[in-house]
Amino acid sequence: MTTQDRPLTLSGERFAAVYHLAGAPTAAQARQRACDICFEQTVEFPDELIPSAAIREQIVGQVAALEPLGADRWEAVIRYPVEVAGRELTQLVNCLFGNISIKPGIRLMGLDLGESLGRLYRGPRFGQAGLRDLLGVRDRPLLCTALKPMGLNPSELAGLAYRLALGGIDLIKDDHGLTDQGFCPFEERVARCGEAVARANRETGGRSLYLPNVTAPAAEIARRARRAQGCGAGGLLFCPGLAGLDAMRALADDDTLALPILSHPAFQGSFTLHPDAGLGHGVLYGQLNRLAGADATIFPSYGGRFAFTPRECRDIVDAATRPMGAWRAIFPVPAGGMGLKRVPELIGFYGRDCCLLIGGDLHAQGQDLTATCRGFLEAAKAAASAARWK
Amino acid sequence: MTTQDRPLTLSGERFAAVYHLAGAPTAAQARQRACDICFEQTVEFPDELIPSAAIREQIVGQVAALEPLGADRWEAVIRYPVEVAGRELTQLVNCLFGNISIKPGIRLMGLDLGESLGRLYRGPRFGQAGLRDLLGVRDRPLLCTALKPMGLNPSELAGLAYRLALGGIDLIKDDHGLTDQGFCPFEERVARCGEAVARANRETGGRSLYLPNVTAPAAEIARRARRAQGCGAGGLLFCPGLAGLDAMRALADDDTLALPILSHPAFQGSFTLHPDAGLGHGVLYGQLNRLAGADATIFPSYGGRFAFTPRECRDIVDAATRPMGAWRAIFPVPAGGMGLKRVPELIGFYGRDCCLLIGGDLHAQGQDLTATCRGFLEAAKAAASAARWK
Repeated sequence: MTTQDRPLTLSGERFAAVYHLAGAPTAAQARQRACDICFEQTVEFPDELIPSAAIREQIVGQVAALEPLGADRWEAVIRYPVEVAGRELTQLVNCLFGNISIKPGIRLMGLDLGESLGRLYRGPRFGQAGLRDLLGVRDRPLLCTALKPMGLNPSELAGLAYRLALGGIDLIKDDHGLTDQGFCPFEERVARCGEAVARANRETGGRSLYLPNVTAPAAEIARRARRAQGCGAGGLLFCPGLAGLDAMRALADDDTLALPILSHPAFQGSFTLHPDAGLGHGVLYGQLNRLAGADATIFPSYGGRFAFTPRECRDIVDAATRPMGAWRAIFPVPAGGMGLKRVPELIGFYGRDCCLLIGGDLHAQGQDLTATCRGFLEAAKAAASAARWK
Repeated sequence: MTTQDRPLTLSGERFAAVYHLAGAPTAAQARQRACDICFEQTVEFPDELIPSAAIREQIVGQVAALEPLGADRWEAVIRYPVEVAGRELTQLVNCLFGNISIKPGIRLMGLDLGESLGRLYRGPRFGQAGLRDLLGVRDRPLLCTALKPMGLNPSELAGLAYRLALGGIDLIKDDHGLTDQGFCPFEERVARCGEAVARANRETGGRSLYLPNVTAPAAEIARRARRAQGCGAGGLLFCPGLAGLDAMRALADDDTLALPILSHPAFQGSFTLHPDAGLGHGVLYGQLNRLAGADATIFPSYGGRFAFTPRECRDIVDAATRPMGAWRAIFPVPAGGMGLKRVPELIGFYGRDCCLLIGGDLHAQGQDLTATCRGFLEAAKAAASAARWK
């Protein structure tokens, strides 16, 4: 019997999406809006034209809860059949927020895949625990920085990488704008920076990791990741907003690579800027990154060059770390104009299980970059130690 | 001499991005905001720490124009070195709007790649002219519909496809939620629907095209596209918001496929909903789709289930069709709850060089779907003919 002869008999299992709805003054209007989502995200077809009761009952989303949030805002929980999401992250995201991304007044705030759908996604290979094992760092936040500015050549960047590793920075990543430009080709940069960090590690006995940026055209990503691995890269930097969330999942799931992945938020900002549309900060930078295998998630912290609030940052931390299926907790990586003077405050806010990314400010402390990094490390250790006894 | 020994000597060629800035009461503030973009999108480094004049002069963006738009809003034209964008669509998009997507009050409104950078992107293989050639349709808008609702099995969808092709629909696409679900596997669906449309074409002498959805996990896209081609698919449906803009470009550039591509806006809506952030409708649905090789761009028309205004739709049409480098004009495909009764009005608004996508409403006219499609075709011909003499 081939598929086309079978009647529609799905498992009945469903996964849940939480939406905030805005602009619905009455409960009846809110319920209508939630029902519209149930159809829009599945059959995309008018109720009265659905050709069979089986489709209406088994395919269409269901409103599982609807609660007022105050004024004309509501929280709706909608449950979709696991089979609608299939076995693919692209279709899962489409079911969660594909067409309704275009409708005003709907914001995706969370997801719960449940057992059977959850098993399809391996999630972070390392997570916090695995990254700490790799680095041998237990009792303090990780330290991260970027190789920049763009315009330096590979040997200049390698010189920086050497000094940063010598100073004890755990994760030394390419600036996310460094790809394969003629003035700084991928191959040459990665070979030189990989060698520089390895050399520093030999000298210090440390375990700093170099993470090249493998955000690239579709057909290039895997090749660059493999090349990076061959050059001794200790992890990979990736921008899922530019190259696709599933492309990151593919990197994370590749057993022949088995490298930790640091996710960068480039081109994803538009999802969170409208308070009543798009994606909540936690679901975008936390849940979706975990689902797609990131081990650490960079986001712009409150108090920097960008405009996230402490509460939005807290949402990201919660979504990156709270229990979620079988997926490991990942490192929140607050960034975007952080300064050394804020280390105690940042560790006070984010706790010890974060990764502090400081870029330009490491270069603003005078010529001795290695000494500056050692100061960064000492400040982080001291603040983490103080936080322990709070 | 290897790269690392060379001094930085770029060509001096630049490409242009047009931004709208909001929330800058004075010209000085607007200029500061524009300057911030120049640094954020290139060196991502404080001006005073940039280690060489060559980097400041050759890498950093430049404000080429700044004009008031009224109240506290401004239009800024910023020119970036072509070498910063490299030879990669992912990095081009990153340079245009990567980090600043996260900043409030900045909206990307347009881009002009210029000669040398423009040559790197082949753009639409068919465009309007090529699609008209394939279909043999000259003097009227194209007609498009989707195979749905989800939950029908492959033979039921093939039955629909047959009747739609018999009725003269030009482009018969998978609903974008149909991927490779167990209840409707890709292989079986595409084989049956491809066969059904071919059979209808043999009977009518027509040239209807079947466009399967190849939005898929990263490693699956090319395989599905090739399988679709093997089953006689006449084109491909793709959601760049879900699977990546560059993945669409890769499909479009594949000479062994050479199939027209219909772009679907799923998961892209958040980019346009905030009036003072994200991407303008024209740049997202028009320019970026053309750059990435779409031959036709689906968007939600004014007056349907979504909330675009006529002006926003006009922006999309303009960006899809106006001269832009060497790239062909592509078909605007207004959609999202269009009804048959609106065909004259829609053709009045969009002109003859559009593709009308009507989904559910074709099924709301009674049992004889083929007759309904013929009515759609006649209505489109009549309206196009009337529009000609206006």
